[in-house]
Amino acid sequence: MVPARGRPRDAEADDRIARAAVDLLRDEGPAAVHIDAVASRAKVARTTVYRRYRNRAALLAATLGQLAEAPLPSPDLPLQDKLRWVLEQALELVEVELGRGAIAAVLADADPDFTAAFREHLVRQLTALQERIDADITAGRIRAETDAEAVAGLAFGAYLGELLRHGRARPGWSDGVIEVLLNGTSPGRGRP
Amino acid sequence: MVPARGRPRDAEADDRIARAAVDLLRDEGPAAVHIDAVASRAKVARTTVYRRYRNRAALLAATLGQLAEAPLPSPDLPLQDKLRWVLEQALELVEVELGRGAIAAVLADADPDFTAAFREHLVRQLTALQERIDADITAGRIRAETDAEAVAGLAFGAYLGELLRHGRARPGWSDGVIEVLLNGTSPGRGRP
Repeated sequence: MVPARGRPRDAEADDRIARAAVDLLRDEGPAAVHIDAVASRAKVARTTVYRRYRNRAALLAATLGQLAEAPLPSPDLPLQDKLRWVLEQALELVEVELGRGAIAAVLADADPDFTAAFREHLVRQLTALQERIDADITAGRIRAETDAEAVAGLAFGAYLGELLRHGRARPGWSDGVIEVLLNGTSPGRGRP
Repeated sequence: MVPARGRPRDAEADDRIARAAVDLLRDEGPAAVHIDAVASRAKVARTTVYRRYRNRAALLAATLGQLAEAPLPSPDLPLQDKLRWVLEQALELVEVELGRGAIAAVLADADPDFTAAFREHLVRQLTALQERIDADITAGRIRAETDAEAVAGLAFGAYLGELLRHGRARPGWSDGVIEVLLNGTSPGRGRP
């Protein structure tokens, strides 16, 4: 046999493996993403996958790492449009990128390797968002007392709450959410 | 055989069946709640369960209907304490009453009968809460433009968002959430 060592990696196989893993995750949920299934779907040998990922945890981390990270909205966008953007990102993550089965698996911790990979992915995304929120606070575009992590968590959770109650995002559901996130509920802060 | 007709229902069997169903839901998730398993755990005949619930959907609805509904907080409570109460109720529902597996099953719609029973239960609880919020708006205790359903959904979703990111509610996690729900994020509403 010709040894693989020294041979340049096959970029086409890289792509096929990456796509197979993302497709399996979306179509069949995290339990379906393992070395054998990815090799089979990508039509490559198991060793070809193992050469890239030493185990399933590494494969899962790489799979989530491939998901497109939407660029953060422009700093000049009005605050309500930024909040709308966050809500849309939550919807996109659940419905398009990962699928509801993946979110359910994390909630139930049905697959600890996937839970770990998911949290790492989410924390990376939310950290970038929170840094942006903190910059907006410094610039006076967001109220100074605001807890950036709380805003990010509320906006993300809002979509899950909508899904649990209604099974889908009703048209216009985000308007009331954005209004509350902008202005709160307290009548104590009198309008100028 | 002595016919069951006319005989008063056995209150002890009622209790045993009810408790068995709630315990199965919490311990093993919604998939475990079906007529056979409930009869077995309650140590009654299947017909004893069927006499009370014509099918699994009716059993699930009754199981969720038995969960204690916490009385709404007093109207005179400060708004931030009311918001804290809602967050605590969401945590209680997920962690104590139903279990995370049940919430995951609804998100993935893994068990349509349970999803339907859960939504009915949740809508009943949230409707009572929204009516209270609407009354607080009328009384000037909550800002007039507030969308009651959005507040209820945000508070409920906030706990799910916390769970997804951190796997648990971190100590003090609700403080930042309550601050945002009270005062919003917009710097535009100048302090008096």
